Amino acid sequence: MDRIRTIEWVDGRVRLIDQTKLPHEFTHVETDDYRRLAESIKRLEVRGAPAIGVAGAMGVALAARACDAGSVSEFRECVRRAGRELAATRPTAVNLSWAIERSLRVLDDPSGTKPDEIRVALVEEALAILEEDRRLCRSIGRHGAELLDDGDVVLTHCNAGGLATAEYGTALAVVYTAIEQGKRISVFADETRPLLQGARLTAWELKERGIDVTLLCDGAAASALRDGLVDKVIVGADRIAGNGDVANKIGTYPVALAARRHGVPFYVAAPYSTLDPSLVSGAEIPIEQRSSDEVTCFAGCRTAPVGVATFNPAFDVTPAELVTAIVTDRGVFRAPYGETLFRRGRSS
Amino acid sequence: MDRIRTIEWVDGRVRLIDQTKLPHEFTHVETDDYRRLAESIKRLEVRGAPAIGVAGAMGVALAARACDAGSVSEFRECVRRAGRELAATRPTAVNLSWAIERSLRVLDDPSGTKPDEIRVALVEEALAILEEDRRLCRSIGRHGAELLDDGDVVLTHCNAGGLATAEYGTALAVVYTAIEQGKRISVFADETRPLLQGARLTAWELKERGIDVTLLCDGAAASALRDGLVDKVIVGADRIAGNGDVANKIGTYPVALAARRHGVPFYVAAPYSTLDPSLVSGAEIPIEQRSSDEVTCFAGCRTAPVGVATFNPAFDVTPAELVTAIVTDRGVFRAPYGETLFRRGRSS
Repeated sequence: MDRIRTIEWVDGRVRLIDQTKLPHEFTHVETDDYRRLAESIKRLEVRGAPAIGVAGAMGVALAARACDAGSVSEFRECVRRAGRELAATRPTAVNLSWAIERSLRVLDDPSGTKPDEIRVALVEEALAILEEDRRLCRSIGRHGAELLDDGDVVLTHCNAGGLATAEYGTALAVVYTAIEQGKRISVFADETRPLLQGARLTAWELKERGIDVTLLCDGAAASALRDGLVDKVIVGADRIAGNGDVANKIGTYPVALAARRHGVPFYVAAPYSTLDPSLVSGAEIPIEQRSSDEVTCFAGCRTAPVGVATFNPAFDVTPAELVTAIVTDRGVFRAPYGETLFRRGRSS
Repeated sequence: MDRIRTIEWVDGRVRLIDQTKLPHEFTHVETDDYRRLAESIKRLEVRGAPAIGVAGAMGVALAARACDAGSVSEFRECVRRAGRELAATRPTAVNLSWAIERSLRVLDDPSGTKPDEIRVALVEEALAILEEDRRLCRSIGRHGAELLDDGDVVLTHCNAGGLATAEYGTALAVVYTAIEQGKRISVFADETRPLLQGARLTAWELKERGIDVTLLCDGAAASALRDGLVDKVIVGADRIAGNGDVANKIGTYPVALAARRHGVPFYVAAPYSTLDPSLVSGAEIPIEQRSSDEVTCFAGCRTAPVGVATFNPAFDVTPAELVTAIVTDRGVFRAPYGETLFRRGRSS
């Protein structure tokens, strides 16, 4: 497979790979109902910060088609309400609310005054966000590939691959680009409990592309690092605070600790828009607590006693000092960052 | 439930909790056939090094009841053959072969010359091993309980509880004893991939005893430690090298790294016989690589693409410097150990 089209706009409908069905089934969800799309975001049928940003913008465009209010101001309020609904589906990822806010700003554009004009403009905005995401991932790949050497084994956590973005990935974009450049790269993929995105998605997309992948339980990553089986760690990010602290999938932080312990570089690859200068440090990043069922059940099979309490944060925060460098579409930022992380402004 | 009787001798039969059915069903296997007991060890219906040691000795006692050979020497050979069969069920478990060899030495005792006397002596030997395991665990509990304070939250990994021993556990013996002393203790239990002993067994046995337990994915332990939700870590051990390096279930080492980072004491609780002075350091501990299926399947449901390679070590090694103290039946050994770990000799 050359390209994974994680999420697309096809004839007025959104079409996305149902990631909850992978790796068993390769199927799609297709809908013209923004509420169904919101469900897709909630159920993680589409996931990964950039991909759900695209989904959010497409959701606003779908909502505008459905909003059939009398006045333009009622129409705008209808779309804004749908935007708030979509934004509430996942609180941690900054991309979702960013993409939705960006789409909603179209409503304020004085040049589009009629609902139909606004509807068209919102579709164009969503497609622009999709296209920017594609370019962005390519750019992350190009910048990051310089960090990889021929023969490297890269460990990654969760899925920051094509399935997390419109098509190419962030952490895995670095791997894909290095391989396109002729370097031989293989990957160790943490399975990433509770939702097993590493086992289900990362292993799947790497195998689809013919890349050598080894799957391991999250608790085995420290042993792989200690045994010298891994040359570099590259993970994605859901949000990066002003000081460089990184929020990413739960289980990232212990990998960073083990990487530091064994002198293995720990890179974070993410769109520049993941940087959130409004947050002084990772302590300010809201961490979503998810349902107990994710921990106590698997594939419909209960694995723990009924009624057991759980601790199930979706993300953890890796302190900046454990991050060797942050790879973005605007270049590689090496710690200590000083003022450099936000020097180039935020809008993209 | 006041006591978990993991394995018992009842009226000439062995009765054990079928751990493969937990936490869904609390059922027992009861048999007077040593071959059925050997199956139980193979299928992990009974597991945990001390518990399968007891099972092995009881298996020899069952075999002696069934052996009905003509001469005493034929009888002895029949029992020895059964012992070899039992020992082959889990070739890597040291306690199993140790307990079986100890039972078989009864055959050499010149005071018991008739098969019936030997049969009685073999039952007594098995019950002695069971009783020693009980005393040992109680002793570990007593020594370790001094390390816990009223109100403590203890994080543990895998199952070093009653289900791994005759009744009381090693790491969990410390918790049980502290609670018996009137301290309020609650537990965070890592689910422990790939075989989920934490979710299936530790959570179950704590709930059965009415102890407050919170289940978490292995990758979330570092966050729990950072968030200050955990006061102490206590884990078991499969082998401890001469320098104090500890081999335990895969995923223990990253917990130790996070505990150190956040200033949380990391304790190991194990029988003194787990100390192996023949090994200079953890680097000499052989680490068993287990089947890919454990990582790629769960409960009969494939979670990863067909044909993916895996890295699946059963154990990892926590370096001595990360271990605050080792709790044994002979007392608490605090790092740095110097000569103290082996000063009291090895036989018990």
